[in-house]
Amino acid sequence: MDARRPEREMRMSGFEAAIAVERIDEGRYEAVLDDGYVIGEALNGGYLMAVLARAAVDASPHEHPISTAATFLRPGRPGPAQLVVDTRKQGRTAATALVSLVQEDRSVVEALITTGTLDAAVQPDWAGPAPDPAVPPLADCTDFRAEKQDAEGFAGRVDMRFDRTTMGWLDGRPSGTPDSRAWFRLRDGHEPDAYSLAVAVDALPPVALNLGTRGWAPTVELTWHMRAVPAPGWLALHGGGRLMSHGWFDEEVEVWDSTGRLVAQSRQIARVGRG
Amino acid sequence: MDARRPEREMRMSGFEAAIAVERIDEGRYEAVLDDGYVIGEALNGGYLMAVLARAAVDASPHEHPISTAATFLRPGRPGPAQLVVDTRKQGRTAATALVSLVQEDRSVVEALITTGTLDAAVQPDWAGPAPDPAVPPLADCTDFRAEKQDAEGFAGRVDMRFDRTTMGWLDGRPSGTPDSRAWFRLRDGHEPDAYSLAVAVDALPPVALNLGTRGWAPTVELTWHMRAVPAPGWLALHGGGRLMSHGWFDEEVEVWDSTGRLVAQSRQIARVGRG
Repeated sequence: MDARRPEREMRMSGFEAAIAVERIDEGRYEAVLDDGYVIGEALNGGYLMAVLARAAVDASPHEHPISTAATFLRPGRPGPAQLVVDTRKQGRTAATALVSLVQEDRSVVEALITTGTLDAAVQPDWAGPAPDPAVPPLADCTDFRAEKQDAEGFAGRVDMRFDRTTMGWLDGRPSGTPDSRAWFRLRDGHEPDAYSLAVAVDALPPVALNLGTRGWAPTVELTWHMRAVPAPGWLALHGGGRLMSHGWFDEEVEVWDSTGRLVAQSRQIARVGRG
Repeated sequence: MDARRPEREMRMSGFEAAIAVERIDEGRYEAVLDDGYVIGEALNGGYLMAVLARAAVDASPHEHPISTAATFLRPGRPGPAQLVVDTRKQGRTAATALVSLVQEDRSVVEALITTGTLDAAVQPDWAGPAPDPAVPPLADCTDFRAEKQDAEGFAGRVDMRFDRTTMGWLDGRPSGTPDSRAWFRLRDGHEPDAYSLAVAVDALPPVALNLGTRGWAPTVELTWHMRAVPAPGWLALHGGGRLMSHGWFDEEVEVWDSTGRLVAQSRQIARVGRG
């Protein structure tokens, strides 16, 4: 940590503060987006979705963002943002709202968010097999931040340990398949919840890097579903993809918690980076 | 076919007519929803998404619905409907709109649709392997309509031939895994296009039936991506799922065309049926 940073700012740098929204009026919120979640020039899409989810849950009688379908229109920037939650249906089991994140009078992200309430004690009626291969044991994974000394930005907030076999693109040797595996946790000790899951589903480097593409790959649409209340501890991220064509690629991520349960699943469609 | 049906209505029963939208004003359309796409009491969600896509493409400079993230608020009914296309961004590569389908002044479906243009001649830069197992040869699949004589409703519009090993639930012997495989085409001879793909991704019986659930399973959210311009001929549908818990289950569908290309992929989250 940077010893020059004032104590007050240190306290405010936690994930809870970074995703806080202030209710101004019915369905209207304000937030100050945290520059700690910048990747390259823009805020991470998962971080933006966490802020959207905060507003959606605040405006809902339900506790969890079960389904979030987000379209990214413009890069999000650190600083002030407004959120508009337009409730479209409120039901006993689920409620749906259109949530917009606006900066400088322009919509940055639009999302249809359906909230519901999950119970941490519920056991699944049926669960598919765990992904194979698993993420290697933590001790066998690589903390690239430790190598690169880039504690600023996203890597300063999020602690990821990568299956090195899926990171060959870093050394100019992309694996040729869009698989990516890593452990994930927030550096501030915030245990996994609905909001950190939103970050987790968009935290992996673009899987298309493994196919030889380069550079930032802007997400156009990302839908993720929260499937269970995550247990404390590291989250395992399993990324994959099915097709890269016409400059578009898909990326699927499954998030498994420390008790071996599927807690979130996502698919995004993104533009291939331009190097 | 019913010989008593007037010829004019026969002509109008094609898929093109069923998904037609009439432009009333900028971003405003009218449609008459076709009772041929009813399953049980409500219109098939895929059919509704095809109508939404028609309006979105009409209002866009682009040709194809690349990404459709639809939330289903209420059952759609045959008869008049209004569509509102609220453009959120128009770009050179893609345009995004919020599209609402309204009946009796209430929103039935809301969707964020991103349009773009795909070129049928483009070869993928990278494509994942075809699903394994494949859908069995057409001659080995079962046409349940032929057995049940139910030419009315959805089965009268859509010709599906099922991998019988994934349909054991029909005889009270669910397979225990949420896999489902079938061939798909429209009965009127309409060759695969963006709009029939919207129907295809929501055409399989709920995969949760294979896990022992019963009855109609209402889709809450379905996101699908069009990945290529489909070739003429049968489409192969591969359905699966990962988790059934808290009364929610996910269903993934891949659609492959007759030339062996992935042309669409979807995930939906639905409520478990109540039998």
